Amino acid sequence: MTDMRRSLKEIAEKINATLIGDADVMISSLASLATADSSQLSFYKDPRYLNNLQDTTAGAVILTESDQDKCNTNCLIVADPYQSFIALAEFLSQATHRKTGIHDSVVMGKDCQIAADVTIGPNTFIGDNVCIAQGVYIGPNCIIEDHCVIDEDCYFWGNVACYHSVQIAKRVMVHSGVVLGSDGFGNHRTATGWTKVPQLGTVRIGNDVEIGANTTIDRGALDDTIIEDGVKLDNLIQIAHNVRIGSHTVIAACVGIAGSAIIGKNCMIGGAACINGHIEVTDNVIITGMAMVTSAITKPGMYSSGTGLLPSREWRKNAVRFRHLDKEFRQIKRDLSER
Amino acid sequence: MTDMRRSLKEIAEKINATLIGDADVMISSLASLATADSSQLSFYKDPRYLNNLQDTTAGAVILTESDQDKCNTNCLIVADPYQSFIALAEFLSQATHRKTGIHDSVVMGKDCQIAADVTIGPNTFIGDNVCIAQGVYIGPNCIIEDHCVIDEDCYFWGNVACYHSVQIAKRVMVHSGVVLGSDGFGNHRTATGWTKVPQLGTVRIGNDVEIGANTTIDRGALDDTIIEDGVKLDNLIQIAHNVRIGSHTVIAACVGIAGSAIIGKNCMIGGAACINGHIEVTDNVIITGMAMVTSAITKPGMYSSGTGLLPSREWRKNAVRFRHLDKEFRQIKRDLSER
Amino acid sequence: MTDMRRSLKEIAEKINATLIGDADVMISSLASLATADSSQLSFYKDPRYLNNLQDTTAGAVILTESDQDKCNTNCLIVADPYQSFIALAEFLSQATHRKTGIHDSVVMGKDCQIAADVTIGPNTFIGDNVCIAQGVYIGPNCIIEDHCVIDEDCYFWGNVACYHSVQIAKRVMVHSGVVLGSDGFGNHRTATGWTKVPQLGTVRIGNDVEIGANTTIDRGALDDTIIEDGVKLDNLIQIAHNVRIGSHTVIAACVGIAGSAIIGKNCMIGGAACINGHIEVTDNVIITGMAMVTSAITKPGMYSSGTGLLPSREWRKNAVRFRHLDKEFRQIKRDLSER
Repeated sequence: MTDMRRSLKEIAEKINATLIGDADVMISSLASLATADSSQLSFYKDPRYLNNLQDTTAGAVILTESDQDKCNTNCLIVADPYQSFIALAEFLSQATHRKTGIHDSVVMGKDCQIAADVTIGPNTFIGDNVCIAQGVYIGPNCIIEDHCVIDEDCYFWGNVACYHSVQIAKRVMVHSGVVLGSDGFGNHRTATGWTKVPQLGTVRIGNDVEIGANTTIDRGALDDTIIEDGVKLDNLIQIAHNVRIGSHTVIAACVGIAGSAIIGKNCMIGGAACINGHIEVTDNVIITGMAMVTSAITKPGMYSSGTGLLPSREWRKNAVRFRHLDKEFRQIKRDLSER
Repeated sequence: MTDMRRSLKEIAEKINATLIGDADVMISSLASLATADSSQLSFYKDPRYLNNLQDTTAGAVILTESDQDKCNTNCLIVADPYQSFIALAEFLSQATHRKTGIHDSVVMGKDCQIAADVTIGPNTFIGDNVCIAQGVYIGPNCIIEDHCVIDEDCYFWGNVACYHSVQIAKRVMVHSGVVLGSDGFGNHRTATGWTKVPQLGTVRIGNDVEIGANTTIDRGALDDTIIEDGVKLDNLIQIAHNVRIGSHTVIAACVGIAGSAIIGKNCMIGGAACINGHIEVTDNVIITGMAMVTSAITKPGMYSSGTGLLPSREWRKNAVRFRHLDKEFRQIKRDLSER
Repeated sequence: MTDMRRSLKEIAEKINATLIGDADVMISSLASLATADSSQLSFYKDPRYLNNLQDTTAGAVILTESDQDKCNTNCLIVADPYQSFIALAEFLSQATHRKTGIHDSVVMGKDCQIAADVTIGPNTFIGDNVCIAQGVYIGPNCIIEDHCVIDEDCYFWGNVACYHSVQIAKRVMVHSGVVLGSDGFGNHRTATGWTKVPQLGTVRIGNDVEIGANTTIDRGALDDTIIEDGVKLDNLIQIAHNVRIGSHTVIAACVGIAGSAIIGKNCMIGGAACINGHIEVTDNVIITGMAMVTSAITKPGMYSSGTGLLPSREWRKNAVRFRHLDKEFRQIKRDLSER
């Protein structure tokens, strides 16, 4: 748990809550209703957790006015408890962000434009002609190659690698181990093997994007790979060259998106789903986990593939049937027509 | 091959073996029976490899007393040849671990507690209030953020990123590219897009855990993500926020486990399997590779999903049948009942 | 877009093209026919893009003599436009490679052999007894552990981790976040849990291999993990211990290959496919995306598994049928035989 220590009075003011109870109670962190102790703050919204609310040992609970009477501890009354809880959590966690300027060990190339209040952590390498705008935080051991542009208030955790010429808009959060702008997988078959096709495009990331740990986004072959505003990417995702992901689409961990696929806006893609190259998925599509998307999706809606889990012994019998599915049906139809 | 050079006499003493043969033979490394040369040591246990034993050119072989007469080279007689081989290999490979103290280039925050014999490699960053206990080795280019606690005899290879407040117990091995404590994938839908839900929990790793290269383990949203004692994780695994993995469970590469899933003790999860969020898998479950676990597993046993591999031309016919599986069966039943 | 600025005359000479048009036109970069402006160069080969050729605003187009009359801008006439375009792109992108020697911040062990013209980027760590041959470029924040051998003209992007004793042949390109030589996943079950099996082999990479971002290749248990000449690996691939991949095989992103699998030459493996351990796949096999390869493939050809994507409502009905596939068929056959 991140540590803080603030009075309920201060917290109530921060989130514009009406405080019912002891304003001097000191809160050190946030927790769920079931686990919170008297120095912790929780929230209540979902009636399924009514028992937890009634039994909670939290120092205080954020809830709506109508739920106040069910609560036996200090109350912070708001209109939307979860929203207020998020706002408070964000406020408190920001306290941990270092603002320490550019560390002595940073190696920086020539002709860079770095705003006055930028923080760059130890042992980070910045190439030539890099632009970093105000409010940006870059953690330790990052690599920002030549000609990268990082706009205002971006937050890079440590160990991020950004190849040359990557363009990143405002308020983008990039987690550790992310690789942006690595070469797309372009190989041209020749008589003796494969020739590498140079990847001359770059990656452009929109505003308010978040990119999870160890996710990779390849640069375009000729044109650019594009992640539009508000896209949220989880960990260990692969985005191939020349993919475009529409605004406010969220993608869970371990997804792979092959080259030149176009994903629409406001889509939700479940974990470990894979999307074929050179196809288009329209807006507002939901793809369930591990689904295999081999051709275009033109209508909004929810899509799936795969088979459900079974005890292996049963599964094996069915899988054997699947191996002969077409033949089985042909045989049955023949048998039926013969009678 | 890691290099060593020790006499058979010294090796026999190390593993309490009875040496039959030339005590002065110098051994430089270990190898399989089939490939070992006269400066290498091998072991024999499985009768399927009897031919390899008889033909081996190894400098010596570890085996049981009853197999001694089948061996034409120097013998090291033990009760459990494989166990002795592992012990010997571990002994020899430890020889390569550097014990060099804290490198001059390490950047360390304030108020850290670092035991006297800790090794920290070049260009590693240690935040504020970090505790590192005795016997810990941390490789080059790591990031250990504020308030992390690393207990005795942990071994971190280089390029590991540990976000703030992560707690790691004794004898944990963490491989390169691992990210521990990155933000869970928490997004709250609003009218204009998605708001990030701050992730206020952390990650707690038990004793004797091993974490493979480029694996990611997210911190909890409110409560913690927990990896219990003796868990073994392979490479490129994703563990989402608030997951709990029971002790001595082993998980192969490329597995994804979604948020708040609870995995039991002594489970074995095959490569690239995926486990849905908010479900529980009981103890002693085996999940085969690429299986899709969408709901709780309440009984021990082996579980699978998917379809077997086929030549694409055959597969395509069956996959088309699957698209209409329900309709096909309905039609057949109608046809059957009409007759 | 990577920046350059050269006259058409210079470019024509570089690729041995016949220039038809204005030799003084300055070209700053390459682009597709549809997006190129007057300072950009494109190519034309595929008749499907004839409209794009006729409408292009590119400064010049590389094409064959027979297509010259369809082009309204400056022409570079060659025999194989795509090949020439790749050659040109490669030439131009090489301009961005830094040749700056060994950075002051590099930490290097003892008894290394480093050729005179090697470049090693800031904050890279080189262990003891490392050999690096001429023409090698190693980016920032890399780790090259003891006894590694890197042959001529290899290119390592930043943040690469190479465990001890890894052997890399000529002209190998390794992208950021790659981990080479991490321990294979070897665990020996004992009464109290799992004992780690030391991994004593290493990794050997052949000539002209490319390894994509965040891919992991584990070292062998006793013998080595081997990637043969000309293999191309995309991002986020897992190669387990003692795997052997035959020459000129290409593997798309997110593929997992389990321990001791042997993959043939000239294979093509689609994204997120998984290959079981201890099996052999012969030469010239094509495996489609997400396929599950559980047993040996002895004949060349194309192989697949899985089920196609459907709207979730339809999929669910079919998936339920699959759960009882064997029973359904037994029942139908019983019904048929009874009539």
